[in-house]
Amino acid sequence: MPAEIERKFLVKGDAWRSLATGIAYCQGYIASSADRTVRVRVVGEQGFLTIKGSTVGITRAEFEYLVPLHDALELLSTLCDPPLIQKKRYTIAYAGLVWEVDEFEGDNQGLIVAEVELTDPHQAITLPDWIDREVSDDPRYFNANLAKHPFSRWEKGEAF
Amino acid sequence: MPAEIERKFLVKGDAWRSLATGIAYCQGYIASSADRTVRVRVVGEQGFLTIKGSTVGITRAEFEYLVPLHDALELLSTLCDPPLIQKKRYTIAYAGLVWEVDEFEGDNQGLIVAEVELTDPHQAITLPDWIDREVSDDPRYFNANLAKHPFSRWEKGEAF
Repeated sequence: MPAEIERKFLVKGDAWRSLATGIAYCQGYIASSADRTVRVRVVGEQGFLTIKGSTVGITRAEFEYLVPLHDALELLSTLCDPPLIQKKRYTIAYAGLVWEVDEFEGDNQGLIVAEVELTDPHQAITLPDWIDREVSDDPRYFNANLAKHPFSRWEKGEAF
Repeated sequence: MPAEIERKFLVKGDAWRSLATGIAYCQGYIASSADRTVRVRVVGEQGFLTIKGSTVGITRAEFEYLVPLHDALELLSTLCDPPLIQKKRYTIAYAGLVWEVDEFEGDNQGLIVAEVELTDPHQAITLPDWIDREVSDDPRYFNANLAKHPFSRWEKGEAF
């Protein structure tokens, strides 16, 4: 089974900014529920369609396919619920692992998270200085949930 | 926009059987709602992922992608709600159009429908003798709904 094993953390400070150049991502969800999501994503000139199963601990089945950019843009505008997720992704190598720092924009502006993909759920990792607390198990930070309950509304007391 | 324009009919008699050889289809739905469906389909050794928008009259946006057979089988068994749709499809040319006769099996055994794809919603069509009444507008016959409310249960008074 194709699967992703990820840990997710909040980010503090700006030291990470000088380590990479951000690339624009736009993504939305054709379907999202507790046990499966269907995501459309545009990165630069490439479109992707990704199906993920439920998260079991920090592991999740994932199936990803390249699709024509034109299709992806049309799927985003016609079949994904607004608001779309807009973010810049910074890819940073550190201590033998690759970190992806997502700086959200639009309705999720102000949120910055870092993810690291592992090969084993119990793998030891060395945290960079700019890593804050872990949020792997907090469903509010799932991108599918950020599309429904954007970060900008969290402090206004919107029920999750 | 990629779109399909289809009319769907019930089928009577067996005259259509001698006109083609049936090919086995197995399909299921990762998501299905009134305004969008995400379908996984296996035809022979090929897997497909298909996203459709809402049906407006007899027209519907459709995005279809070839995916590895192994992925399609795993998506069917792990991320699609049972029962899966099993059917044999017979492709029959008649009076300048291509008809697809679907003979359902499994939980939908006993149901046989014929679809014809058009290039224009107002296109005139000549019906073969083995065509019965039209069901284009009846949502019970949508494959996504046959996966939720199979034909075999219709006569047992299950609410739709």
